[in-house]
Amino acid sequence: MFYYDGKLQYQVRVDTPDPRFARMLQQAIGGVEGEIRVCLQYLFQSFGARGPAKYRDMLLATGTEEIAHIEMLATAVALNLEGASSSEKDRAAKDNPVVEAVMGGMDPRQFLSAGMAALASDANGVPFNGSHVYASGNLAADMYANVTAEATGRALACRLFELTDDPGMKDMLRFLIARDTMHQQQWLAVIEELGGHQGTLPIPNSFPPEEELREVSYTFFVPGVEGVPAPQGRWSEGPSLDGLGEFKLMPGQPFGDKPQLAPPLPMAYAERLQMTAPHSADPASDPTR
Amino acid sequence: MFYYDGKLQYQVRVDTPDPRFARMLQQAIGGVEGEIRVCLQYLFQSFGARGPAKYRDMLLATGTEEIAHIEMLATAVALNLEGASSSEKDRAAKDNPVVEAVMGGMDPRQFLSAGMAALASDANGVPFNGSHVYASGNLAADMYANVTAEATGRALACRLFELTDDPGMKDMLRFLIARDTMHQQQWLAVIEELGGHQGTLPIPNSFPPEEELREVSYTFFVPGVEGVPAPQGRWSEGPSLDGLGEFKLMPGQPFGDKPQLAPPLPMAYAERLQMTAPHSADPASDPTR
Amino acid sequence: MFYYDGKLQYQVRVDTPDPRFARMLQQAIGGVEGEIRVCLQYLFQSFGARGPAKYRDMLLATGTEEIAHIEMLATAVALNLEGASSSEKDRAAKDNPVVEAVMGGMDPRQFLSAGMAALASDANGVPFNGSHVYASGNLAADMYANVTAEATGRALACRLFELTDDPGMKDMLRFLIARDTMHQQQWLAVIEELGGHQGTLPIPNSFPPEEELREVSYTFFVPGVEGVPAPQGRWSEGPSLDGLGEFKLMPGQPFGDKPQLAPPLPMAYAERLQMTAPHSADPASDPTR
Amino acid sequence: MFYYDGKLQYQVRVDTPDPRFARMLQQAIGGVEGEIRVCLQYLFQSFGARGPAKYRDMLLATGTEEIAHIEMLATAVALNLEGASSSEKDRAAKDNPVVEAVMGGMDPRQFLSAGMAALASDANGVPFNGSHVYASGNLAADMYANVTAEATGRALACRLFELTDDPGMKDMLRFLIARDTMHQQQWLAVIEELGGHQGTLPIPNSFPPEEELREVSYTFFVPGVEGVPAPQGRWSEGPSLDGLGEFKLMPGQPFGDKPQLAPPLPMAYAERLQMTAPHSADPASDPTR
Amino acid sequence: MFYYDGKLQYQVRVDTPDPRFARMLQQAIGGVEGEIRVCLQYLFQSFGARGPAKYRDMLLATGTEEIAHIEMLATAVALNLEGASSSEKDRAAKDNPVVEAVMGGMDPRQFLSAGMAALASDANGVPFNGSHVYASGNLAADMYANVTAEATGRALACRLFELTDDPGMKDMLRFLIARDTMHQQQWLAVIEELGGHQGTLPIPNSFPPEEELREVSYTFFVPGVEGVPAPQGRWSEGPSLDGLGEFKLMPGQPFGDKPQLAPPLPMAYAERLQMTAPHSADPASDPTR
Amino acid sequence: MFYYDGKLQYQVRVDTPDPRFARMLQQAIGGVEGEIRVCLQYLFQSFGARGPAKYRDMLLATGTEEIAHIEMLATAVALNLEGASSSEKDRAAKDNPVVEAVMGGMDPRQFLSAGMAALASDANGVPFNGSHVYASGNLAADMYANVTAEATGRALACRLFELTDDPGMKDMLRFLIARDTMHQQQWLAVIEELGGHQGTLPIPNSFPPEEELREVSYTFFVPGVEGVPAPQGRWSEGPSLDGLGEFKLMPGQPFGDKPQLAPPLPMAYAERLQMTAPHSADPASDPTR
Repeated sequence: MFYYDGKLQYQVRVDTPDPRFARMLQQAIGGVEGEIRVCLQYLFQSFGARGPAKYRDMLLATGTEEIAHIEMLATAVALNLEGASSSEKDRAAKDNPVVEAVMGGMDPRQFLSAGMAALASDANGVPFNGSHVYASGNLAADMYANVTAEATGRALACRLFELTDDPGMKDMLRFLIARDTMHQQQWLAVIEELGGHQGTLPIPNSFPPEEELREVSYTFFVPGVEGVPAPQGRWSEGPSLDGLGEFKLMPGQPFGDKPQLAPPLPMAYAERLQMTAPHSADPASDPTR
Repeated sequence: MFYYDGKLQYQVRVDTPDPRFARMLQQAIGGVEGEIRVCLQYLFQSFGARGPAKYRDMLLATGTEEIAHIEMLATAVALNLEGASSSEKDRAAKDNPVVEAVMGGMDPRQFLSAGMAALASDANGVPFNGSHVYASGNLAADMYANVTAEATGRALACRLFELTDDPGMKDMLRFLIARDTMHQQQWLAVIEELGGHQGTLPIPNSFPPEEELREVSYTFFVPGVEGVPAPQGRWSEGPSLDGLGEFKLMPGQPFGDKPQLAPPLPMAYAERLQMTAPHSADPASDPTR
Repeated sequence: MFYYDGKLQYQVRVDTPDPRFARMLQQAIGGVEGEIRVCLQYLFQSFGARGPAKYRDMLLATGTEEIAHIEMLATAVALNLEGASSSEKDRAAKDNPVVEAVMGGMDPRQFLSAGMAALASDANGVPFNGSHVYASGNLAADMYANVTAEATGRALACRLFELTDDPGMKDMLRFLIARDTMHQQQWLAVIEELGGHQGTLPIPNSFPPEEELREVSYTFFVPGVEGVPAPQGRWSEGPSLDGLGEFKLMPGQPFGDKPQLAPPLPMAYAERLQMTAPHSADPASDPTR
Repeated sequence: MFYYDGKLQYQVRVDTPDPRFARMLQQAIGGVEGEIRVCLQYLFQSFGARGPAKYRDMLLATGTEEIAHIEMLATAVALNLEGASSSEKDRAAKDNPVVEAVMGGMDPRQFLSAGMAALASDANGVPFNGSHVYASGNLAADMYANVTAEATGRALACRLFELTDDPGMKDMLRFLIARDTMHQQQWLAVIEELGGHQGTLPIPNSFPPEEELREVSYTFFVPGVEGVPAPQGRWSEGPSLDGLGEFKLMPGQPFGDKPQLAPPLPMAYAERLQMTAPHSADPASDPTR
Repeated sequence: MFYYDGKLQYQVRVDTPDPRFARMLQQAIGGVEGEIRVCLQYLFQSFGARGPAKYRDMLLATGTEEIAHIEMLATAVALNLEGASSSEKDRAAKDNPVVEAVMGGMDPRQFLSAGMAALASDANGVPFNGSHVYASGNLAADMYANVTAEATGRALACRLFELTDDPGMKDMLRFLIARDTMHQQQWLAVIEELGGHQGTLPIPNSFPPEEELREVSYTFFVPGVEGVPAPQGRWSEGPSLDGLGEFKLMPGQPFGDKPQLAPPLPMAYAERLQMTAPHSADPASDPTR
Repeated sequence: MFYYDGKLQYQVRVDTPDPRFARMLQQAIGGVEGEIRVCLQYLFQSFGARGPAKYRDMLLATGTEEIAHIEMLATAVALNLEGASSSEKDRAAKDNPVVEAVMGGMDPRQFLSAGMAALASDANGVPFNGSHVYASGNLAADMYANVTAEATGRALACRLFELTDDPGMKDMLRFLIARDTMHQQQWLAVIEELGGHQGTLPIPNSFPPEEELREVSYTFFVPGVEGVPAPQGRWSEGPSLDGLGEFKLMPGQPFGDKPQLAPPLPMAYAERLQMTAPHSADPASDPTR
């Protein structure tokens, strides 16, 4: 169960409202790198956690923190949309700075749909989409999903930091960037606790190794046409990171043949020719030519 | 530029077609853990790669391999939808095994929209969504995104492996599971090349550390109400993974006040009461009561 | 800011797990009538609240309660997916009850993507979509949006109640149905506080009445072809609900003419004929005939 | 069945085309508050209407009217995109006012995808999404959904009214605002006919009251942490609106325990540690620490 | 403007309700091949029509007809969901045929969200998406889009015909299949009126031919690796269909070089190594190796 | 299987980077008329091809070519986002041309989410959606879908051509426009090979003609209200294009009656009145009035 106190986790101050920056902040609310996503992601991972209870608890703690980040950013959006003189309603639209803001770069739905407040959408107005809530049931996979969310999320916050000169906004972003630093650490610390590369790889580590085709488990395929040099690096030679194999390079090549499908099912109503023409894999012998 | 040979990267064989399994395979084609996603993700990361060229090349190699995986899985879907007797069209719908398959558990759009073939959708028929193509411009963030894709992708392939007894399908999955093993390794090998935790964290590592609020960069906040024990682990004490700090635990608490927004903008047309009532943060003194 | 205690707001017990019911419950989590929606809707209305602070606070209270409902339902999903014998892994897929459950009616992604847990999606696997988070900035409009959410939500919960015989699930639904009763009341109580129909209508009540075309503000148009009887009721005669007009009936009829658009813009590349043919509203005189 | 006459329900005139306003109008066409939504919503409610036929008929009448509103707005968009000189094609892009309009604030897809016409999308170019078509089968729930649509729709129209100085556009909006006034009335008139609060609440009113947990049906829960004052109002004391209970206030508190899920299903391939570590709810006793 | 009469364009009769067929019918309502799509597509093409007025009028006529098809199909869905005995409410869920229908193959949202009626979604419950409304402003392009819609729509209707033995449903589909026949004809008749292949190709035919790279306008590129035979047919030799060129075959090959992007923009926060490492296109000389 | 060489199919050069044009180019990447769509569409049609093998091969060839077009356009986007001075990071945001570009008209996610590179989205930032991948299993339907894609795609490319003065961009578009010319030809050449109108219509041509309601297969219905003239043209008289009928005109009129649905199912919880009121089709006799 959850509780609130109505205060902000960290102060949100806007010295000079900027409606265009309010649009940018939407990415940190409803974007794929945003706070609704991490909030729901950690909460769903927690709600579905099976195995040691402490991970459920940790996920719950941080998922709860992220609700407060949504609150901070939504407040920041609302404050960036304020500040127009109260007499704007009497002006003609063409001289009205609010009109210029709405039509000239802010998210118009912040005005049209929300009356000058935040939306559950990204910086292009695309609504948050729940398919980004990764909760795979595999703890290691989830931790990497979480690192991804916090790494792209911190890159986003750093980029937002560059888009504003507002001291209040910079201050808020300094806090959020630091929290993303911690959260990256935190999920990687779980990986370390699970034994690092050797303890977790390949993910899932519970699938019987003998069931996979080990011949290609450490092979870097290079499907370049003739003459294309192989990209080389840590992945193309030396021991594998899980300690179970040796990397090797191999040109890409087909192990299979050309696929052959059956003729169309009559009740699926292909064109007649598809159903009656000889069904040949060799275009040279094709009687429809 | 890209080339084809029309053969399959690995043999796809279906001994006993199973239309319900054809639906399950859709998750590996158009799902968030699927091959369209990794294919486009690696290609877009490559197309937008800035910095050392070898990463662009490696991404291109593996992105190209993934197109072949879409081809294999689409073929597997088509083959699982075959096998009904050619006389089915004369039967009444109620006795027709194809009708039963379409209405009884396969993806009906594999028949209705595709005439017994694969779709660019997941196992619930939800179309592939391009927002899952992560290409952040930050190499480390992208590598973690790729590990996530391959970890959830391998979990998916292992789960699919359990859903079928078909020797051909199991054989194909053994190959795909092994490739996911390699691809997990490969992206983590880049992280290692970039210097591992200490070389890459926090991501992005190019943001000036002094600009973030370092006091909270290694603090695990526990916003539990009174009496809730703190979840402890590698993340709550000891040196941070980037070697730059020391983890600590702290109860969650607000550093900010209650937010105060301005009254509604007249031209945004709130209700009159919202615009005229005293605007108080203290419900006890609120004259609308 | 938000806090947690890790307990459930109300007990969630499943006596006889039913994977198909787990799919049904998804509608109450990620569906348009579901808890993610109301949770975010009330929170965003609160975060963007302008005007008397008590409404912000009330919305925050109930938005916080709804997070706990997501938690309850996600737990209910996970429990409905349990219970298969621990030896299932050794069975062939065709005899395995888990396989039958996954392929035979449950949401396959609860297994494939989540490893037997809840998703942020609806009963058809369609991900939650943030555009359903209504927070218009107009308190009365928002209250009606909230009533709608709780009315369709309660209908959903009642329908779920009919789909299960499980005493634990029925008990949980009794609680949720009662909460939806209260929440309907609560939002309508705000309308009453705002003055009921006469105090709030038309919404927004702050638009100057003289600016709208009052002649058609209380007219029920019936665009039936000749001979179609007018549907009559409280809306077709008697005083309007806002006390400002009188309902009347009128056949639908055009007040405008046939629209006339300019020829295509050359740089938009219509077909040549569209750009050169005489541009006539009268097909009879059209030289292309 | 449906019929047309090719005329506009109300005159649409644009004195000074404004491509940026054409983008704003998209919200009223394909947005969640827009006309495609209400049109389909009323038609689907009508097509699925069960119970007294007059509601089916009334919904059909107004659903049919709304098609004409889509027509008006699409015409308004097209007209706002006209007016550039016919010689623009010979100019360099950098001096071309159409190019500036396309790249400088209008919806670029109105040019790129539609050749200067309206789209079935909102003001951010997000396509109309059918999940907003509410038709619940419960008449009271649907009426509130309709009031919501018309209340947010009227707020949208009023906000659009502020964004333009064009006399033709203002005239058209005056008509649409008035129609939204009527439609709000109309749906509330049905509620009145159904008996108002006492006749309809709780929605659905056909669920047996004794089956819900009446103890919490009129209780306003306040899950604030210690020290947070309870938001009070009409919802916290006095008789309930359905006349069946008495409102009361209660602090939020868990009636349930900490949830306990079973260990992972082997065939769902969690990490090994999740399957083998003791499964304890108490982090203090957790052997993985 | 639009009008209604409340009757069905063609009789809709269901002799034996089949809830699973009700799900299939959804594809014809809200699917990409469905009636909401063609309805809105023809109406938007009409509303935005520029050039000879008769095409606007024809599109309006057929767009209006399609609304009636939505009405027929929604009615068919509702009727297929009827028929369960009125005493079902007293049975336990496990013996209730309605429960079995809801959980066993019908679209559960037809019950959960709509109370046994149609939705604005496809056969997988994916909501209708407005991006399928093609109205390009180019008449020839639009006609081909319309042929596509009617060709896939007729294939869908034929496939639905195979899934049912119900005489009423077969009768309705016979009508709809015939209408799709006509509508295919109709859009192709416009192409013929525009001059057929030679009059319309390439679409748009108003782009100055000298501006395109004519050397590759009639060349079929075959990017097969060495040894792959070229697929030959009408497209690889002989005069082009527009009468302006001659088809020829050519192996695929790059006309361009390897792309070279600039180093990352500092304010976009790539990893440090991406910004500092020498930026070489030749992996062999890459100092990061 | 697929291969790469890392070179561009055609040179991509940007003389004067233009971030706003980078946004426009997104439509050609991830838009409904864009290259991801045609690439996946042709590949899925190929992967699921049943019937003569040469069509599978041809689709594979062109599908492979389209991957190279995505590569070219993604490169063009990246290059259009370059060129800001390397010292921009030291400037205040308000004087920074990159900041102005991000907030003033480019797709902000190209910076925020991708660090100055392309996205898998359209010009409004709406992610690519896999439902646009048409692969119906009917060759003729698919060919028309492909013509549509190339016709709208070429219109898009022509429109993009008008938005730029950059010689490099114009050169690239000349190539792409020419390829779209060829691809339109190519798909229509298949139709010709299949026998043209008479050989393919109606699509699917394998449905038994006697099963459709031939009386309305060549009838153009005009559901205009009284006085509306019938839009006439090639579609209203003369032989049908398939040579099997004669076009004729008919006013739209209902062949069916008013639909009558059963009363609500008790377990679907309509309002009580819906379940108990007499169920009459005649509003005049309705006792609820």
